[in-house]
Amino acid sequence: MLASATEADFAAWMGAIQARVEAALARSLPGPQQAPARLHQAMRYATLGSGKRVRPLLTFAAGELVGADGSRLEAAASAVEMIHAYSLVHDDMPCMDDDVLRRGKPTVHVEYGEATALLAGDALQTLAFQLLAEHVKEGKPTDGDAARQLEMVRTLAVAAGSRGMAGGQAIDLEATGKQLSQTELEFMHVRKTGALISAAVKLGALCTGPCPAALEQYAHRVGLAFQVVDDVLDAEASTATLGKTAGKDSRQRKPTYVSALGAARAKQFAEELRRGAHASLDALGGRTERLRQLADFIVLRKF
Amino acid sequence: MLASATEADFAAWMGAIQARVEAALARSLPGPQQAPARLHQAMRYATLGSGKRVRPLLTFAAGELVGADGSRLEAAASAVEMIHAYSLVHDDMPCMDDDVLRRGKPTVHVEYGEATALLAGDALQTLAFQLLAEHVKEGKPTDGDAARQLEMVRTLAVAAGSRGMAGGQAIDLEATGKQLSQTELEFMHVRKTGALISAAVKLGALCTGPCPAALEQYAHRVGLAFQVVDDVLDAEASTATLGKTAGKDSRQRKPTYVSALGAARAKQFAEELRRGAHASLDALGGRTERLRQLADFIVLRKF
Repeated sequence: MLASATEADFAAWMGAIQARVEAALARSLPGPQQAPARLHQAMRYATLGSGKRVRPLLTFAAGELVGADGSRLEAAASAVEMIHAYSLVHDDMPCMDDDVLRRGKPTVHVEYGEATALLAGDALQTLAFQLLAEHVKEGKPTDGDAARQLEMVRTLAVAAGSRGMAGGQAIDLEATGKQLSQTELEFMHVRKTGALISAAVKLGALCTGPCPAALEQYAHRVGLAFQVVDDVLDAEASTATLGKTAGKDSRQRKPTYVSALGAARAKQFAEELRRGAHASLDALGGRTERLRQLADFIVLRKF
Repeated sequence: MLASATEADFAAWMGAIQARVEAALARSLPGPQQAPARLHQAMRYATLGSGKRVRPLLTFAAGELVGADGSRLEAAASAVEMIHAYSLVHDDMPCMDDDVLRRGKPTVHVEYGEATALLAGDALQTLAFQLLAEHVKEGKPTDGDAARQLEMVRTLAVAAGSRGMAGGQAIDLEATGKQLSQTELEFMHVRKTGALISAAVKLGALCTGPCPAALEQYAHRVGLAFQVVDDVLDAEASTATLGKTAGKDSRQRKPTYVSALGAARAKQFAEELRRGAHASLDALGGRTERLRQLADFIVLRKF
């Protein structure tokens, strides 16, 4: 009874944040009729209407821990989600993964053509940084606000760049067809997926001040767990459940945690990371409940 | 005698700034051996070793007017040039202009493959924003520093995004094969080229404080003049002189100032903009000499 009440409460919180982020994204993106209309429509298509919003959920959960301002969290969560959306648009293009299905819909280049997809991804990245640099709180901005916002720009850029997400993609490209050790896999995935997941957590904390070390450790563990579970799902779930093409990794001969460790050991590793994430939170006082629930959600999800 | 002494002085200044920006870019870009090495090599290939550095020159000239700190100007100039370099990498890709030659060298996707070119462009954009968010001045940053840097991030993002450069590219795509009016052409080019050229000027001024309105007007005029001259050169200069494929606009049936106005009237328009840029500077006190010389250089250049 208690467990299901907690679950219902978490589901309600998640739904509320997802709706709030959807509304914030819709407001931040240029309107579909604003020139150049086709580009703006492609940007909206790539970002709105679906997605689990795992990164925004983490931003809000970390923000709850530190008591962050809501409008600032909306901007941070939207910026992270736009970086994620841009990376998916470019990753799906024919010269990269060449995929036709994403979040249950045709990919952006299938729907709008490659040139528009390229530009839409580019412009989504730009808009993410613009959002973080704008004044979002009511009233006159203080000097401390600017310093914190600047730290958020830097954190997101480091996570998204060539030593973060884009670098992870590049390593992934080069690794196709190779067998990697667990250490090499981790080097790749800490960048490819982990960096942005971690940044989502850190940005939530940075809305009020420096990110505590224990929260950084939680972010690292959850980020890696997310990718391990993604690998397991790619191997075991169906395309219909995932909303994206399943079984791609093995067809494309990509090294994954499943190919490196086997499915059973990969699941065990994800579970260890989940417990480790909880242990990191034990070092923090305050409202860690949502962060705990999200670690569970990320590891125990079926899609 | 006086004219040629002035010219020699301008050439020496230009050479010194170009060398300084080259060194700053080389320092800011990740080393060619740092993992992922191939991605970092592609980023360096796209950015270093050539290019007129028109945007960095404008940043330094505007910085000279307001007495800006040198290390801050280096960061601003490098950021603008990285945005420019990323846009060229993506613009040259097969799904866009499909070009094989840039700055006298094979384009990035020819040299490194399309996937790496896509990621290199993405990561160059990210690095531009990272640079603007980092502390570059010696000593402890002040609160005012953070506010100014944040304004620089916002200015560059607005100039590069879907209502600036990327938007101009999208309009250009849609306009292929159409005849545009001068007003429509200007709408496109103010975004496609003008926005980033203007941002280069504004970032120089923003290193110390708000950008004066007269300087914004100068930036707008010079940005538009740059594109008009580019259109004339594409029609009249050779591939060898340009270091990029000449005559592309007419082969790709792109609307240009030459196709809209004819070459003679286009040249006259560029000259009007040059005089207008000088007139804007008349409203400003201080050291406007370099900005004047750059307006002349941009309109009277042969490459």
